[in-house]
Amino acid sequence: MTLDDRWFTESSEQLGLAFSLKLKGRNKLFDVQSPFQRVEVYQTEGFGNLMVIDGCTMVSTRDNFLYHEMMAHPALFTHPDPKRVVIIGGGDCGTLREVLRHDSVEQAWQIDIDEQVTRAAEQFFPELCASNHDPRARLLFADGIQWIADAEASSIDLIIVDSTDPVGPAEGLFSVPFYRNCHRILRPGGIVIQQSESPLVHLHLLQDIHRIMREAGFDSTQTLLFPQCIYPSGWWSATMAGKQATLNTFREQDALHKRFDTEYYNRDIHQAALAYPEFLRRALAAR
Amino acid sequence: MTLDDRWFTESSEQLGLAFSLKLKGRNKLFDVQSPFQRVEVYQTEGFGNLMVIDGCTMVSTRDNFLYHEMMAHPALFTHPDPKRVVIIGGGDCGTLREVLRHDSVEQAWQIDIDEQVTRAAEQFFPELCASNHDPRARLLFADGIQWIADAEASSIDLIIVDSTDPVGPAEGLFSVPFYRNCHRILRPGGIVIQQSESPLVHLHLLQDIHRIMREAGFDSTQTLLFPQCIYPSGWWSATMAGKQATLNTFREQDALHKRFDTEYYNRDIHQAALAYPEFLRRALAAR
Repeated sequence: MTLDDRWFTESSEQLGLAFSLKLKGRNKLFDVQSPFQRVEVYQTEGFGNLMVIDGCTMVSTRDNFLYHEMMAHPALFTHPDPKRVVIIGGGDCGTLREVLRHDSVEQAWQIDIDEQVTRAAEQFFPELCASNHDPRARLLFADGIQWIADAEASSIDLIIVDSTDPVGPAEGLFSVPFYRNCHRILRPGGIVIQQSESPLVHLHLLQDIHRIMREAGFDSTQTLLFPQCIYPSGWWSATMAGKQATLNTFREQDALHKRFDTEYYNRDIHQAALAYPEFLRRALAAR
Repeated sequence: MTLDDRWFTESSEQLGLAFSLKLKGRNKLFDVQSPFQRVEVYQTEGFGNLMVIDGCTMVSTRDNFLYHEMMAHPALFTHPDPKRVVIIGGGDCGTLREVLRHDSVEQAWQIDIDEQVTRAAEQFFPELCASNHDPRARLLFADGIQWIADAEASSIDLIIVDSTDPVGPAEGLFSVPFYRNCHRILRPGGIVIQQSESPLVHLHLLQDIHRIMREAGFDSTQTLLFPQCIYPSGWWSATMAGKQATLNTFREQDALHKRFDTEYYNRDIHQAALAYPEFLRRALAAR
């Protein structure tokens, strides 16, 4: 069968796969060409609102909890005492909201290059923006690569790279120079976590990210796996790296007794996300 | 964008989502209308061959390892000594191949109602049929519901319900009478495992399966989660039930030292698959 224009489709000729969500009455809620990218929001039949950047699905109302919780809580519950957190990208504000659920966090910067992403989120994903006015939050619209390059050495506990795919504005985020600067601005014991694409269809990229992080000076790396329906293959990953840190410091009791609600994350899911399938174990051992 | 006929698309108006694989030169390898269903095989650009039954994606060369390994190994490594195994459905023979990797298995029946599925698999997924001539294998083309109803009481250690979705020929597999018969033919300590759809988009069905299994007399139930790219939402589940068995009997050391190769399954993945996300924990506690 073929799909008509009542569906939004993200397709990749290179991967040979496509994912589609049915639209509600062909309703496009937002369409802005920013200086950086095209930002659109659609209303869908089954997944609530859908943000699309340069044709790629970014966030849906229904399934964003998977991604946002997994970009925030595993790293925050691995760091012994995360106080100063930086989010690079993350303009939809969902990761920021999760970060601020942790009482230890004293300051959280969200540095997205594109203000239009946040403007769209405020209108069409207001629940993700619920903590934007938290006194600990700082929303900046600036080049995250430059911000990291300019930041003070040993000043940050956790960097969350919540970026688009490694093409366009996000390309420089998947590089050794960027990670050298991340390493420089982290305090000893600091962690960086990066969304690292699909283990099934972007395995080479996942291998590259481990290599890049190690080359940049990090002592340890660990990938987390989780489902993410609207991203290619439906299976996604994030990769953590530790500066003078083993990453074997999961604060299990704190996760078990966390004082906030989640939809996906909990102590068991944290541990589950760390398990490597056989093919991934082999792919990462071979690097 | 719209997708043309160079793609195979499975879409669900009800769920509001669709998944597509790009075809290699519009190449359809097999197309048979059996007495039960339409069985097609396509050649794809990125996922090898693709079997489709009544318009639903069933098996791709590239990602079937996830499903087949998870339908077989967790249950086999939970049962203390699985000797007699029955697969209901499973006509592509991939689950049978995984079952027969276990030395303890003395006899494995595969009972699929539709011989055409196996004929298609033999031609286009020969790797899945590699164990069809194992002397322990019995391939029958018959009604699995009837077979289970006729089978001797307390004669089987493990039943694997490797069925299509709960519509058409597979509908009767998602019912209390079927599970009562499964319970009857299992030996004490026996296990049944059923593919139980997507935790994200079929949560009600997952809840139903637990209820049905308990109503049919099983003492314990446990869902396993795993990625499955070509199925709706990319996230799938299987649910185990134990007859006079807790299911807390994972033979961890045997899994760790298993004498066969896998692509996905291992000891850590087994444990990871048992972790319930918060929303699932709540949904199953509320039943």
